[in-house]
Amino acid sequence: MARTIGSHSDITGPRVREAALTLFARHGYAAVSMRQIAAEVGVQAGALYNYTPDKQSLLADLLAAHMDELLVAHTAETPKNSAPTDALEHFTRFHIRFNAARADAVFISYMELRNLSAENFGRIEALRRVYEGRLEAILRAGVASGAFDIPDPKITALALIAMLTGVNTWFREAGRLSLAEIEEIYWGMVRKTVAV
Amino acid sequence: MARTIGSHSDITGPRVREAALTLFARHGYAAVSMRQIAAEVGVQAGALYNYTPDKQSLLADLLAAHMDELLVAHTAETPKNSAPTDALEHFTRFHIRFNAARADAVFISYMELRNLSAENFGRIEALRRVYEGRLEAILRAGVASGAFDIPDPKITALALIAMLTGVNTWFREAGRLSLAEIEEIYWGMVRKTVAV
Repeated sequence: MARTIGSHSDITGPRVREAALTLFARHGYAAVSMRQIAAEVGVQAGALYNYTPDKQSLLADLLAAHMDELLVAHTAETPKNSAPTDALEHFTRFHIRFNAARADAVFISYMELRNLSAENFGRIEALRRVYEGRLEAILRAGVASGAFDIPDPKITALALIAMLTGVNTWFREAGRLSLAEIEEIYWGMVRKTVAV
Repeated sequence: MARTIGSHSDITGPRVREAALTLFARHGYAAVSMRQIAAEVGVQAGALYNYTPDKQSLLADLLAAHMDELLVAHTAETPKNSAPTDALEHFTRFHIRFNAARADAVFISYMELRNLSAENFGRIEALRRVYEGRLEAILRAGVASGAFDIPDPKITALALIAMLTGVNTWFREAGRLSLAEIEEIYWGMVRKTVAV
């Protein structure tokens, strides 16, 4: 069915997702009702079901959309055929920048995994593994070329992602350090962690 | 007022905290009622108020107790007058072991900060800063002695803690690696991160 550009559906869908993201991040998924989401958007509760079959689907779609966006942006922004050290530097800076700009989505991506159905959990975990796998591939390429010394690339990938995502727990726009300075400090740490 | 050892209060207090911890970790603070906590303990909702004035106090006390336990254990287990490298190795292994054994408490310590009143948030943040400050002091001592090269010890302390706490997101008792092996891999990464 064709839709008119700028129709009610086109505008309301993103607003529903934005409202759900904000409310889930503030109060937690289990404490937020479809009624509250509808009130935040300014529509009747019944109208929400035009955009999502239920709250579980809304959560899963939010987390999947975040991971999809991450993977698409990472693919689009990653230079081709980089040496492992350059690829690792790019990954480090990309991850910090991407996540710092999406604090709510990152927060619920970790916190609300417990509230996903088994099927939805599997879907989100698979996307997360793709992303972790990209870092692991960079680390393995560096080990193969002799640029890196890493006893367990899988664990190192998880450790570095945790370290980089941790920026979100304390970074504030008005803080002592700019995001560019933070990228620089973290890249220095990451480089040393994998060094020969 | 003197209490008989093993009295109702002595036994029920810990059970209330344990039930609250489990339920907050599973469903989120905002979605859990005092009635549910009482049901989990097997007492009437009204009886809970013998142990805590309200749900907010219960959350704050859980988070404070976790941080107190962390600080006490860290003090008790930390060898005195260690060289910075030894102190850093001890911190790394202690942090992984302590947190892996307390997954629910660690989870709500990050996720439920948003639900603390301003006063309680300040109290928990102050305890957390004490712990972060201990790692920062080790790092500064290593810089002063020439053992470490760290451009920003405060940021490095936060980055290392995030990396180490990240073990909790994927560690399973029955997994590929034992906790002792994980400690070894992480200590290898931490040592390189701060290396001259």
